[in-house]
Amino acid sequence: MPMQSREVRLVRRPQGTPVPEDFALAVTEVGAPGEGEVQVRNLFMAVDPAMRGRMDDAPSYVPPFVLDAAMEGPAVGEVVASNDPAFAPGDLVFHRLGWREAFNAPGSALQKRDGSALPPQAYLGFAGMTGLTAYAGLLRVGGLKPGDVVFVSAASGGVGSLVCQIAKLKGHKVIGSAGGAHKAAYLRDELGLDGVIDYKAEPNLTKALAREVKAIGAKGIDLYFDNVGGDHLHAALALANPFARFAICGMISQYNAAGHVSPPRNLTLIMGKRIRMEGFIAFDHHDLDQHLVADMTAWHKAGLLKASETVYDGIDQALSAFLGLFDGRNLGRTLVRLG
Amino acid sequence: MPMQSREVRLVRRPQGTPVPEDFALAVTEVGAPGEGEVQVRNLFMAVDPAMRGRMDDAPSYVPPFVLDAAMEGPAVGEVVASNDPAFAPGDLVFHRLGWREAFNAPGSALQKRDGSALPPQAYLGFAGMTGLTAYAGLLRVGGLKPGDVVFVSAASGGVGSLVCQIAKLKGHKVIGSAGGAHKAAYLRDELGLDGVIDYKAEPNLTKALAREVKAIGAKGIDLYFDNVGGDHLHAALALANPFARFAICGMISQYNAAGHVSPPRNLTLIMGKRIRMEGFIAFDHHDLDQHLVADMTAWHKAGLLKASETVYDGIDQALSAFLGLFDGRNLGRTLVRLG
Repeated sequence: MPMQSREVRLVRRPQGTPVPEDFALAVTEVGAPGEGEVQVRNLFMAVDPAMRGRMDDAPSYVPPFVLDAAMEGPAVGEVVASNDPAFAPGDLVFHRLGWREAFNAPGSALQKRDGSALPPQAYLGFAGMTGLTAYAGLLRVGGLKPGDVVFVSAASGGVGSLVCQIAKLKGHKVIGSAGGAHKAAYLRDELGLDGVIDYKAEPNLTKALAREVKAIGAKGIDLYFDNVGGDHLHAALALANPFARFAICGMISQYNAAGHVSPPRNLTLIMGKRIRMEGFIAFDHHDLDQHLVADMTAWHKAGLLKASETVYDGIDQALSAFLGLFDGRNLGRTLVRLG
Repeated sequence: MPMQSREVRLVRRPQGTPVPEDFALAVTEVGAPGEGEVQVRNLFMAVDPAMRGRMDDAPSYVPPFVLDAAMEGPAVGEVVASNDPAFAPGDLVFHRLGWREAFNAPGSALQKRDGSALPPQAYLGFAGMTGLTAYAGLLRVGGLKPGDVVFVSAASGGVGSLVCQIAKLKGHKVIGSAGGAHKAAYLRDELGLDGVIDYKAEPNLTKALAREVKAIGAKGIDLYFDNVGGDHLHAALALANPFARFAICGMISQYNAAGHVSPPRNLTLIMGKRIRMEGFIAFDHHDLDQHLVADMTAWHKAGLLKASETVYDGIDQALSAFLGLFDGRNLGRTLVRLG
């Protein structure tokens, strides 16, 4: 029996910060799955800043979203019906067909996940790409080593809050930056960071970072996990110790700029301080998946990991969830409950 | 018998581009060398853009120049008299007491060089720190590997011209950028580069680099050796292939900015393209010295290395030599003959 599925479509390429008029909520009908197809009802989808990039029609490592079609993104769902022997009703699956309530797709588009070990949304968070981004960026790209002082921007976000937690679990001093008193309190009280910057309350981010560095008795930072770019990158360059490593994960401050970017004005420090700055994408680090899931599951079961997520309810809230990434409303990983 | 030595002093910290009034030529008397001291008459000194940094009173990896004292910099000289048994008259020595004609110094300030294998000024060029900068930056920091397309800015400069030559000797396609028709002709005709950009004749450096990349049948660049920063770094980011490596050696376009820097406005590309950008200083790579001298001597003796230098005559021309670095007059390594 066919069922209705609501989906969010991109109908216009945003100029700068996306506005509701760039999107439309549409209803489609999902018939019985065809030969080799699997019918999935989504449970959770995630939104992340990188989706902004796919809204532009510009060459990148992933193709742009197609206009007047449902957008895509990471989601987990439950198999409802299956014409693929590899899947059975009730299976938990991870896939990239978010922004919709239900769909039919070939089994090759789906990956089974263990629904007994962890809650389903963990595979959109600490046991999924978010976790891999934090894990690979901190440990491999950033090359975390004993004694490193770690600075994390967007530290209360999905990736940032995991970077902070992994670094703390490994015994490091960690300074985190986030916007707003609520987020700052979360970093200090929940995550137990050694230094916290509420960048919205600081007239000068470089001075704020210098103060926090001094307060923990350090000379500077050794590893910067960048989610933000702009002034944060500037501050990190200014306070970097020699041979510091910068894992460049995101530059959310630059995504919506539409020509108005604010690159760091002290990039020349990269030479005298011999800084290594490296951009990365979690996709390249799937060889670490097993380590990630093993470590995360152990920390989760030991109660050492604080899941941090902002959950919106229903596909009609998906756009609010996404826009919330840019106006600073969301704490932790931003999810939308779809079923 | 005491002899007179002329020297160049910094008398005022420059604002932006240095002007002659920031300096003074003074005469001092060099008496007989004291106990353990060696008297040296300089043969050649070198000037380089990094000296601009030491003219500011700002923390760096080397201390600022002292006001009203002779500046310092790499030079080679001949021992005239010695109260240190390790040195004898006629010895060729490398040291950092340039910007003066003669001096007394303890033997620990001097390093002997082989005056028979190579001409004295080679130790200020391809067999000295300039050579080490090119060699370590290209091979170690940049991680040159087979098939890499190499882009070099300030390619007609002391370091740049060596980077180009090493990369060509190792069989790579090399695109070089320099300012002015004379330098561009040098890159094409003397160094045999595959692509040449006269950036002063190009309204848009990114388009110019795209054109040269296309002309050699490449998709982009794999290794960027940066001496310039600014628009050149922007162009390199725009044309970088995935996993490109940027060896950041200098950013001469940013040194004299006095607050007016032009950082690249497309730094976000570092993520999608997974670019590794690393600043370096040759001082950290002295473990490569033996390899450098062995390779360079072999290439020199085989006639494969084109020495490129602009030589000014006399200490009274040292300031012109230095200022010539910033107005684009000089080709290759800039030296001043002192004796």
